[in-house]
Amino acid sequence: MRTDAVKNRQRILDAAEEIFATEGVAVPIDAVAERAGLGVGTLYRHFPNKEALFEAIVMDRLVRLLDTAKDFEVAEEPGEALFSFLYEFAEQASSKRDLFEALGSAGIDLKARCAELFAELMKSVETLLARAMAVDAIRRDMLANEIVGLIVGTCHAAGDSGLSEAGRQRMVAVVLDGLRPVVRRS
Amino acid sequence: MRTDAVKNRQRILDAAEEIFATEGVAVPIDAVAERAGLGVGTLYRHFPNKEALFEAIVMDRLVRLLDTAKDFEVAEEPGEALFSFLYEFAEQASSKRDLFEALGSAGIDLKARCAELFAELMKSVETLLARAMAVDAIRRDMLANEIVGLIVGTCHAAGDSGLSEAGRQRMVAVVLDGLRPVVRRS
Repeated sequence: MRTDAVKNRQRILDAAEEIFATEGVAVPIDAVAERAGLGVGTLYRHFPNKEALFEAIVMDRLVRLLDTAKDFEVAEEPGEALFSFLYEFAEQASSKRDLFEALGSAGIDLKARCAELFAELMKSVETLLARAMAVDAIRRDMLANEIVGLIVGTCHAAGDSGLSEAGRQRMVAVVLDGLRPVVRRS
Repeated sequence: MRTDAVKNRQRILDAAEEIFATEGVAVPIDAVAERAGLGVGTLYRHFPNKEALFEAIVMDRLVRLLDTAKDFEVAEEPGEALFSFLYEFAEQASSKRDLFEALGSAGIDLKARCAELFAELMKSVETLLARAMAVDAIRRDMLANEIVGLIVGTCHAAGDSGLSEAGRQRMVAVVLDGLRPVVRRS
């Protein structure tokens, strides 16, 4: 892609992510183009339909999440690295849930389509978990897929209960605290 | 109801709960009658269809759960009372999920139908929570509906991830540990 095209693509993605988050996924595609300061034609050249846009946003975030995880793999404090990653993961799982569901309703199984990316992310979580366990920064009885499932489930539960963003954050805080090493009670 | 009828009804419910839990909700109604040691005619007199049976099982459990909660309201250790109740609640939320979903698929919204019972249960959870907070046995930043939503969500996440019963119990343990008062780290 030419540099201009790359820049425009990112401008569209950033504008779309922002507008979907604030106004919901039903917002018309023209509004996305307007927010990005580009013509609708330019937008359609990059993304032929809304689903392509949803998919690109989620993929973009997943790639960035994987980058974050890779950075944390070599962080000095393995405990803080794992918990910071899980916090960021919860943020994304929650804020991108609408996009995921819109894709699901359109018959697009993103998890199957990006199986490799998801697998790489899980591998990275396993590394972060092993490092944190080695310094006793996390309880020892949970597997990586259980931790990921627990966090995704918590964010879904918060959404289903119609909780505020503060309520969701409290729910996630409970789970993250519960993942800390079990302290013997006196 | 005559005493015999009451006894038969309970025998059917016990047999149905057991067989649905071990063999799934698709098991034919004849198998329930056989397990209860009663004729199919007797079963149909009590429960005209499978949905009526599902509903009666869940209602029966909800009533028992409410009884348990009421007992815990006057327990001597408010902290242990709350956590024991939440543990039992998670067991039921998990083991009765299939029945709930089967009812939902049949267009029966049990939560709407038993709104009063659910409301009474929530009131009792609020009492248990207030008592536990008064003795600093639980973190102070969570509301009763958030705690209930978190536990239901955790059990659903465990089911969705296809976790074993042991995996589900570990997930619930993480959440219950996370609900304990926040301990300052040295």
